Amino acid sequence: MEVAQILINGTWLDATGDTTFHAFNPSTSEALTTEFPISAWPDCDAALNAATEAAAILRTVSPQSIAAFLEAYAANIEMNATAIIEAAHEETGLPIAPRLKDVELPRTTNQLRQAALAVREESWKRATLDLQRNIRSCLAPIGPVIVFGPNNFPLAFNGISGGDFAAAVAAGNPVIAKAHPLHPNTTRLLAEEARRALESTGLPPATVQMLYNISNEDGLKLVSDPRVGAVGFTGSRPGGMALKQASEAAGKPIYLEMSSINPVIFLPGALAEDGARLAQDVTDSCLAGAGQFCTSPNLIFAFAGPDADRLLVTVAQNFNERAAQPLLSSAGRDQIGKGIAVLMAAGAHLIAGGQPVEGPAFRFHNTLLQVSGAQFLSHPNELQREVFGNVTMAVIVQDIAELQAILVHLEGNLTGSVYSAKSGADDALYNQIEPGLRQKVGRLLNDRMPTGVAVSPAMNHGGPFPATSHPGFTSVGIPAAITRFAALQCYDGVREDRLPTILRNVIENPRAWRIIDGAFVNG
Amino acid sequence: MEVAQILINGTWLDATGDTTFHAFNPSTSEALTTEFPISAWPDCDAALNAATEAAAILRTVSPQSIAAFLEAYAANIEMNATAIIEAAHEETGLPIAPRLKDVELPRTTNQLRQAALAVREESWKRATLDLQRNIRSCLAPIGPVIVFGPNNFPLAFNGISGGDFAAAVAAGNPVIAKAHPLHPNTTRLLAEEARRALESTGLPPATVQMLYNISNEDGLKLVSDPRVGAVGFTGSRPGGMALKQASEAAGKPIYLEMSSINPVIFLPGALAEDGARLAQDVTDSCLAGAGQFCTSPNLIFAFAGPDADRLLVTVAQNFNERAAQPLLSSAGRDQIGKGIAVLMAAGAHLIAGGQPVEGPAFRFHNTLLQVSGAQFLSHPNELQREVFGNVTMAVIVQDIAELQAILVHLEGNLTGSVYSAKSGADDALYNQIEPGLRQKVGRLLNDRMPTGVAVSPAMNHGGPFPATSHPGFTSVGIPAAITRFAALQCYDGVREDRLPTILRNVIENPRAWRIIDGAFVNG
Repeated sequence: MEVAQILINGTWLDATGDTTFHAFNPSTSEALTTEFPISAWPDCDAALNAATEAAAILRTVSPQSIAAFLEAYAANIEMNATAIIEAAHEETGLPIAPRLKDVELPRTTNQLRQAALAVREESWKRATLDLQRNIRSCLAPIGPVIVFGPNNFPLAFNGISGGDFAAAVAAGNPVIAKAHPLHPNTTRLLAEEARRALESTGLPPATVQMLYNISNEDGLKLVSDPRVGAVGFTGSRPGGMALKQASEAAGKPIYLEMSSINPVIFLPGALAEDGARLAQDVTDSCLAGAGQFCTSPNLIFAFAGPDADRLLVTVAQNFNERAAQPLLSSAGRDQIGKGIAVLMAAGAHLIAGGQPVEGPAFRFHNTLLQVSGAQFLSHPNELQREVFGNVTMAVIVQDIAELQAILVHLEGNLTGSVYSAKSGADDALYNQIEPGLRQKVGRLLNDRMPTGVAVSPAMNHGGPFPATSHPGFTSVGIPAAITRFAALQCYDGVREDRLPTILRNVIENPRAWRIIDGAFVNG
Repeated sequence: MEVAQILINGTWLDATGDTTFHAFNPSTSEALTTEFPISAWPDCDAALNAATEAAAILRTVSPQSIAAFLEAYAANIEMNATAIIEAAHEETGLPIAPRLKDVELPRTTNQLRQAALAVREESWKRATLDLQRNIRSCLAPIGPVIVFGPNNFPLAFNGISGGDFAAAVAAGNPVIAKAHPLHPNTTRLLAEEARRALESTGLPPATVQMLYNISNEDGLKLVSDPRVGAVGFTGSRPGGMALKQASEAAGKPIYLEMSSINPVIFLPGALAEDGARLAQDVTDSCLAGAGQFCTSPNLIFAFAGPDADRLLVTVAQNFNERAAQPLLSSAGRDQIGKGIAVLMAAGAHLIAGGQPVEGPAFRFHNTLLQVSGAQFLSHPNELQREVFGNVTMAVIVQDIAELQAILVHLEGNLTGSVYSAKSGADDALYNQIEPGLRQKVGRLLNDRMPTGVAVSPAMNHGGPFPATSHPGFTSVGIPAAITRFAALQCYDGVREDRLPTILRNVIENPRAWRIIDGAFVNG
């Protein structure tokens, strides 16, 4: 049986280690035929050595060269889009159109191109000059970055093509991507496009390397290796916490996105004004991608009364009527069943779904649960269990005080949404809950669902623990996301011809924003 | 025996717990008479509860009010400067003039006032507006901050008056300061000035609270408490690492400054041009504050030859001639002895000092050691042992290749200095070592000693692990230092009257720099 090769230092090589795995087609539950290797430590070691050398070279490369690579890579992905999308569809069950072809792939290439623009502009470096004292500082590459991509976005968050990847390379670092084992072939195709782009733009071949899979033990060893600069991880909370401990013990910054249930609060006036539309909107948001989005609303709040009753009846009806979409894996489907059991044991009851769908595909019936605010307060930990998929729990609160009490117990989340009456009828309630909600979420929305994360400089795809590991950073939004993979480097009394160009008195780049003696100036 | 009181929620209270401690006069080694309490957990708990309430109020307070407090506090410190300086001198042995009166106290009040200016300006919030999508974000208070101050700067790095304190309050957070047990009375006097400033400016009384001492166990519990937003720590590596693990396991950002030996490299041309002056300069830098500075040059490099020999002879002579200054504690003196033993066991040999000074004060003879580059390479870990105090080790390298090999083994440091010939004779050597050194230090200096850390927006008082816990941040330099104690908060589709003022379309503050649709604009 032929086994796929890993990408090390610009060359496709046989992996060390003698175990393999394969992906599944979630639409048929059949194993796909290609065998992929589980690398042994020597593969990690080789990648780290090559990345260390690449990092030293990348520090001397012009921003234009790094930008050219990102743009060439984006173009390569587009040229080979059909095969990449076909592989992603086969491995994830996500629809080709519109999801993969019209949304996720364009988002991916857009991110790479936005990163390239930021690299050319150089403002992300936050160049700061104190001319009188001749002290100058800027952000600079942090060193080789390990990126672990998640299962739910095979392109836009892939360790070899997603947001963390784009940010780490934009900061001038080589990346060692760990493919998600649910879409190895997609990752292989992307890696080949990255390799060709490196070749055509002359960057060091080890700027992008890729392993399909490693043991948990080697994962911990990898993120704590002295050669590593930083780590990016998007995935499950248990996996993330294990990597976090290992990485931080070695003094390595690690940026994790781990879990979020994304509360959506419907204030009474909003439901009275527009309840029917909101029921459709929340259904769409909950079921998009079979609920397998980081920002899927797994937790909704409404105030007890006829409008809340109508909302739940309509959403339950929608959940029952809409076909359950394939989940990414059988493990994901099993996890949903376990998660629902935890919620129910803590007092939630089913009002739609609750069982796997019979048949070959990995599907679970769209599931809606309900619980009272009082019950939530009696089991706040269990009832915040993240169930990753098409499962949402509605909490019906008696009054604003009960909702405020719940917000005190809320864990950190990526997002929190509040729908309030256009008339202003909910404004007093809004003001009462805003402070409590604001401190628990990275992105506060009004009258919008949390799914759909715009790649905007003002975006925050981040939030307090356990949503992420540091509330000061975002993984989406350029240039802010780039700064995660940078070290602050100060030059004190350094002779001008020895300074990085961005810190010299006069620079050629007309677009760079710099802070000179306290004022932002262009160029 | 009367026991000093702790400052909780604006009131001086008896501590819980039944153990006490006292400080020592390092000039006489005599115990000082005031008894200070070691708090039990209920004191921490009370402080955390009060801080939580204060944090909620501070979010609604204007920048002007926070700035007014910082300025009032600075003025109060100046009004009571004589008593504060006297206490600091008594507890630390540091000279009243120029050190405490003319350098450290003005630095402290300057930091508080710079922080106040940054609060008024609001640029530190990095307000970013995407007007088309109505997505906006800014940095906002992270929540109650615990600050552990070090022993070596009783004012400028004190948990209740230093850089971390100023930054955390400037970001809008309440601070719980843990006094360093070597200068509790100094901290008590500062706390009273903070309390009076809070009272006169109307901020919540729990904006600044202070405990003198807690058990190690309660320290770990404190930094991982759910009510905490973030932690700042300056001190020893073992203490810092224990707090880091506890805090990070709970998902709390912790900023640590732990250890640094601050390499200074003398290239051959520099010694040939100006060796006599450099010998004086490095002596001054090594012995300033009895070497008890975070940026004291504990490690110097020179190339084997007559100029290096002359340098060491002169420095050794200087070390022998200058009186050893008092150290901060007997434990610090013992630590120096142990550290020197480690260096000598690894092959370094003494060329000056090496023994404690007999007499009542805590003093150690100014100590200079020497080791070859080859020996360094054979024991790179032991020979990077930080010996905190008036101890420096010279490494004599044979050639540039040996120095480059040593740089590969260098741990992360706050600073690295290179002296090179004005003639340009060292330029080729400089270019060979710069890349290796650059990635290991937060601040790279040319022809300057690392001691003296200017409070400049371009300063980086930070560096790769283990110098600090994250190479992207600085603890000195405003506004950058403030951003450590902030969360990124995004507003997505939020109605304009509900936005923080800094994110509205038009703002009154004419000085705030904001990024609007990609461009920095003023106001």
